[in-house]
Amino acid sequence: MDARSLQSIFVAVRANKLFELFVITVIVASALLVGVKTYEISPGMRRFTDPLDLVVTLIFVTEIVIRFIADDNRRRFFHDFWNSFDTLIVLVSLVPVDNSDMALVARLVRVFRVLRMVSLIPELRVLLVSLVKALPQLGYVMLLLFIIFYIYGAIGSTLFGTVNPTLWGNIAISMLTLFRVMTFEDWTDVMYETMEAYPLSWVYYVTFIFFTAFAFLNMIIGIVVNVMEEEHRSIRDKAAASRGEPTLADVHERLGEIQGMLRAQAALESRRE
Amino acid sequence: MDARSLQSIFVAVRANKLFELFVITVIVASALLVGVKTYEISPGMRRFTDPLDLVVTLIFVTEIVIRFIADDNRRRFFHDFWNSFDTLIVLVSLVPVDNSDMALVARLVRVFRVLRMVSLIPELRVLLVSLVKALPQLGYVMLLLFIIFYIYGAIGSTLFGTVNPTLWGNIAISMLTLFRVMTFEDWTDVMYETMEAYPLSWVYYVTFIFFTAFAFLNMIIGIVVNVMEEEHRSIRDKAAASRGEPTLADVHERLGEIQGMLRAQAALESRRE
Amino acid sequence: MDARSLQSIFVAVRANKLFELFVITVIVASALLVGVKTYEISPGMRRFTDPLDLVVTLIFVTEIVIRFIADDNRRRFFHDFWNSFDTLIVLVSLVPVDNSDMALVARLVRVFRVLRMVSLIPELRVLLVSLVKALPQLGYVMLLLFIIFYIYGAIGSTLFGTVNPTLWGNIAISMLTLFRVMTFEDWTDVMYETMEAYPLSWVYYVTFIFFTAFAFLNMIIGIVVNVMEEEHRSIRDKAAASRGEPTLADVHERLGEIQGMLRAQAALESRRE
Amino acid sequence: MDARSLQSIFVAVRANKLFELFVITVIVASALLVGVKTYEISPGMRRFTDPLDLVVTLIFVTEIVIRFIADDNRRRFFHDFWNSFDTLIVLVSLVPVDNSDMALVARLVRVFRVLRMVSLIPELRVLLVSLVKALPQLGYVMLLLFIIFYIYGAIGSTLFGTVNPTLWGNIAISMLTLFRVMTFEDWTDVMYETMEAYPLSWVYYVTFIFFTAFAFLNMIIGIVVNVMEEEHRSIRDKAAASRGEPTLADVHERLGEIQGMLRAQAALESRRE
Repeated sequence: MDARSLQSIFVAVRANKLFELFVITVIVASALLVGVKTYEISPGMRRFTDPLDLVVTLIFVTEIVIRFIADDNRRRFFHDFWNSFDTLIVLVSLVPVDNSDMALVARLVRVFRVLRMVSLIPELRVLLVSLVKALPQLGYVMLLLFIIFYIYGAIGSTLFGTVNPTLWGNIAISMLTLFRVMTFEDWTDVMYETMEAYPLSWVYYVTFIFFTAFAFLNMIIGIVVNVMEEEHRSIRDKAAASRGEPTLADVHERLGEIQGMLRAQAALESRRE
Repeated sequence: MDARSLQSIFVAVRANKLFELFVITVIVASALLVGVKTYEISPGMRRFTDPLDLVVTLIFVTEIVIRFIADDNRRRFFHDFWNSFDTLIVLVSLVPVDNSDMALVARLVRVFRVLRMVSLIPELRVLLVSLVKALPQLGYVMLLLFIIFYIYGAIGSTLFGTVNPTLWGNIAISMLTLFRVMTFEDWTDVMYETMEAYPLSWVYYVTFIFFTAFAFLNMIIGIVVNVMEEEHRSIRDKAAASRGEPTLADVHERLGEIQGMLRAQAALESRRE
Repeated sequence: MDARSLQSIFVAVRANKLFELFVITVIVASALLVGVKTYEISPGMRRFTDPLDLVVTLIFVTEIVIRFIADDNRRRFFHDFWNSFDTLIVLVSLVPVDNSDMALVARLVRVFRVLRMVSLIPELRVLLVSLVKALPQLGYVMLLLFIIFYIYGAIGSTLFGTVNPTLWGNIAISMLTLFRVMTFEDWTDVMYETMEAYPLSWVYYVTFIFFTAFAFLNMIIGIVVNVMEEEHRSIRDKAAASRGEPTLADVHERLGEIQGMLRAQAALESRRE
Repeated sequence: MDARSLQSIFVAVRANKLFELFVITVIVASALLVGVKTYEISPGMRRFTDPLDLVVTLIFVTEIVIRFIADDNRRRFFHDFWNSFDTLIVLVSLVPVDNSDMALVARLVRVFRVLRMVSLIPELRVLLVSLVKALPQLGYVMLLLFIIFYIYGAIGSTLFGTVNPTLWGNIAISMLTLFRVMTFEDWTDVMYETMEAYPLSWVYYVTFIFFTAFAFLNMIIGIVVNVMEEEHRSIRDKAAASRGEPTLADVHERLGEIQGMLRAQAALESRRE
């Protein structure tokens, strides 16, 4: 049995509906397994879940191998984001969960198997890709927001560092405290404390809330406008393509033809005279 | 008196304005009755409200029976969502409220009589239907949101389960805690507690807030774009239908006719020569 | 001096720029006076503010009288909302502030003089009118929201009334507690308390937050779509009106004329033959 | 070496890519320096950061001088907002940080050097300018919001001043408390306290939240509509300009020409007869 025929078998397997359904079931089962293991479970049950974990890992390895061999262009297999993504998750699952320092990390990584749900459902992949695509558009607003946080963080730790070191000890802690203020989470407790030392420090908080809210608002509007623009363009394109509707340019062109015909007629008439 | 004439009488009753007004009054009264019974009331007054409750139930039963008999197609009566809805509410009201275990449930079910207000007012029915219709569109975003919750829940209960079992005991409790974090409700208290064991755990919270806020934002934009698209289409259709306004296609067609006329004339002229 | 000439004098006064400026100054001053009086002030200063208050009242009365007499159609004077509004505020200011029970009410009513700022600035009047106009559109969503509140309030006071009477004592208190939950204000404290008695009561809170957030979202989208629609219409109308731009209907009509001319010509030609 | 040749050298320096890169590096370094100094640092390290601070200041002064001399129109140098902005920040950095009263202020001002990041990146400048431009549009809504705050603040301090002077002592403190209520921050604690004295005071809070939320919503919609309108116009203009697409007016004009030609022809025909 040569490599060629092996590949064609694997292509058939990959295209098989039952194989696909089986993989989906395993992914959902592995996700449930992740959930179940967070509960206090008896050792008897543990004797049941641990081998299951191994079985899931083996199935995942087999599936990736089949998909790799079945691929037409094996060199480009890892150029596809979702292939690399799946392989990475499966590879890390192979790290044994013993009582070493890595045990906790290995258990955590196994959680990310749930993300295979995303790589499985095309609609979720589209959604995730569109989320990631929207990020760079927001880049500069995020940078502006970061600069606002940085300046207020520096001012905060300079002024309030002695008032409450837990909240304003250095610029990093201050920025975390400011993130808390931005989410309105018990921000008045923070404010009333500093107002005892600096009675005017409410200006610091109110302006910060104003600036960040405004920047955030701008960000949202930016996305909305962007999304709508694309939506409008796609609607227009679809309308023009599917219904074969004439555009204003078509009408204008046809009018030019009519003018040409009339001019030719007028020229004919004048020659006749 | 045969069944036919009985039906025609009931059809007349159903169409009667006074009957409709009476039913509305009873529904509003039953809603008020539900509210009144949450107050501490004297036994003297209870002697008054309990029979009232029975009267309302009887009126509701009578009304449903009249509407059922008056219906042209009795087999399809329960195919209508609102008919089934009303009947279900009325049927459950018939469960006696004694001191058995079912008493509390029966009292609670009686609360849903207020929902008959929705089935009564057409505008509210439209609103509710549009709400329900919008749900499946959001399906995939909801699923993505659920996956984010599930992964963060699993990580949370793995890492923080020993720090505070009340908040992070298992994946279900962790997801409830994360819902709390998403609403910004005292989330810093939760964070500061885990930061004592894991100083870097703020990354967990900040990224979670970022992801959920972003997914939620996407969801809102999805609805808005959808609603606007439909709105635009309905406006365009209405404009075209009501005002009989010509479209660009009409103009293009008329131009084609003019070209035909000119060509015919030109052919005539050339033949004449 | 007869009534006619008196009216013409008052019309002149009303139209006078200095008079207008003076009234604005008095309104701003009366607003500041309202603010100042909330501070602990010495009796010496009180001897200064109390007569000022009287002076402001007198000026306001005089202004209203002038505007009333200067009005062309005195019978319709109070048909204008802002005239009635101003008169009412001024009239209530005439109630003496002594140590009777009405003293506090009279002081509070004087606060509303600040609202004269709104009746003074046309842009604010437009804003307020548009706010009030938007309300009825939201009527049904508000009603739906109220029904949701009512049902959850009735369920809440039935189930949790014995757990914490301060929060869930009766339907009115329950609805206030639910408003608090809707604003995410310490809602987990409320939830954790009831979860001790009913471990599944988190369903109650999560569904309530979901429903109200969804209804609220719908409300916002409703307003946005409405505002945009009006905006679009006004833009289209303005464009058509100001620039004298031809519409598609104009183009279609002109094409009809051209067809008429061509037909006439063709008829002429055929007659000639 | 005369002034002319000096200027041309400085123009060359300003245009040099390496010089630009160097300035960017120094600005980022100065921003990091601001952050580092918020940490508890050893005196040994302080011996390192203090001269660095001086070096940054000197480089900034040199850069401004170079840009000033290289400018074609030195009189108008400070008419440019960003030049004045940079110069101001650099000038204030020259204030010595000794142990006088001004030391804290001088340290704080140095924080604003981070803002030079904004003046450096054109995209951030555009963003900031657009933020500032959006402010006046919101002027009247802000004024309305202020009036709502002022009236509720006056009522609050009149009614609740004796209940809790820390929160309702005078109109300024009351307005800060109301800002807190608007952000939903522990607003129920404030409410429950006043409800003990005035059981109906929940009306005060609920109406306030309703009014401010509504005004805020209006503000957001105002911006969105405005942004979209500009967007639409710019899209239309771009489409018309770049693609040379005909407008409806072009089509209408061309039809006028055709009518003219047909009339001329008809006149010719009738003359011939």
